[in-house]
Amino acid sequence: MSKVEAKLKELGLTLPGQLKPPAGMKIPFSFVRVSGKHAYISGHAPQAADGSFAQPMGKLGKELTVEQGYQASRLVCLSMLASLKRELGDLDRVTKWLKVLGMVNCAPGFNQTPLVINGFSELVVELYGHERGTHARSAVGMAELPFNIPVEIEAEAEIDG
Amino acid sequence: MSKVEAKLKELGLTLPGQLKPPAGMKIPFSFVRVSGKHAYISGHAPQAADGSFAQPMGKLGKELTVEQGYQASRLVCLSMLASLKRELGDLDRVTKWLKVLGMVNCAPGFNQTPLVINGFSELVVELYGHERGTHARSAVGMAELPFNIPVEIEAEAEIDG
Amino acid sequence: MSKVEAKLKELGLTLPGQLKPPAGMKIPFSFVRVSGKHAYISGHAPQAADGSFAQPMGKLGKELTVEQGYQASRLVCLSMLASLKRELGDLDRVTKWLKVLGMVNCAPGFNQTPLVINGFSELVVELYGHERGTHARSAVGMAELPFNIPVEIEAEAEIDG
Repeated sequence: MSKVEAKLKELGLTLPGQLKPPAGMKIPFSFVRVSGKHAYISGHAPQAADGSFAQPMGKLGKELTVEQGYQASRLVCLSMLASLKRELGDLDRVTKWLKVLGMVNCAPGFNQTPLVINGFSELVVELYGHERGTHARSAVGMAELPFNIPVEIEAEAEIDG
Repeated sequence: MSKVEAKLKELGLTLPGQLKPPAGMKIPFSFVRVSGKHAYISGHAPQAADGSFAQPMGKLGKELTVEQGYQASRLVCLSMLASLKRELGDLDRVTKWLKVLGMVNCAPGFNQTPLVINGFSELVVELYGHERGTHARSAVGMAELPFNIPVEIEAEAEIDG
Repeated sequence: MSKVEAKLKELGLTLPGQLKPPAGMKIPFSFVRVSGKHAYISGHAPQAADGSFAQPMGKLGKELTVEQGYQASRLVCLSMLASLKRELGDLDRVTKWLKVLGMVNCAPGFNQTPLVINGFSELVVELYGHERGTHARSAVGMAELPFNIPVEIEAEAEIDG
């Protein structure tokens, strides 16, 4: 078993299945795109165990508290790792996380976006260790996110060639 | 003629000229920036045939319907291809689309952003084929876009060295 | 002294110290992440001389004028250069600016986002010259930014290997 998957198991975390998109949502793009030693990772949503969007949906500062947003960001991390595993076969092939764009669905006045995206960043660093897991990051507030998901995160990572 | 341009002609599509920016808009940046085998592509707007911003301007969910947003995204694709042709000489030099950030100008409550950005993604895949044209993507809702354009899309692509 | 630092001195500009984050803000990420010949640069905020967030805070079109936003963008540039100097040792090691995502904290109806981000772009080009300093760019309007900063900018640059 890969080291990252062993660590996931140790933490009691499991990866969700492929996203079950809502009715009418076509997906004319790829969740992960590889070019040389780089993986470009689409914006991912928090997923429930069955692959659908996780509850609660909505905006931080309205439907979700900071703590719920933090948990949603952790789920985004698991969703992204699931896509990476499908594409790369082994999560240990990610040698260095590079760049994360964390997007929070904000009700007017909610600006504690970094506290929400920390759910993602802290889990990546816990799973990969600081040297491989740390990353450049922005954590910003969106007017709307697809179908009212609370958090969407995209990333770029270095992989073994 | 390049294969992509032949395909554009077959579809009855033409590329717009250089952007005619609104009065007072300086452009201290480049529409395409090349580094090695990568092209970094600025956020592009939908353009009319004469190079100015295409109509209608405004927000999805207010001034524009989903279908109008989809058409605006197709125009962004043509605008981006026009910039790539000016920079690279030949659109066939794009060997792999990598990453797309689709930004939709959203009135409060409009969150069908993926349906809007599909106008861009589906045209890229039609022109380049699935293998070269598919890409990682986010499609998200902005509070405002420059001068009230409805859609702005930036991208990164692999090119022949 | 490096050429870029000599130019900064000539312009009477100084680089701020490390960011003093507001109480309760953990930073589980890196301000700059290097992979091969690329530097990935986190979203940076305008900083005061003492390292804290610069005043005024708030939204363009409400608390800040375009000119104040332009000045805030210049401060973001200095903040980013300070992070690059800490990471790379010498600012001349940046050989080519590639991509900039400029994010403006917008009150409803404010869409002159390019005029705000020009404060960043024009300073980078002044310091590095057009050939090395120009870059692909998006300049867009966010619903919220962390802790109500007016501007956040992230970037990618090519560095000497």
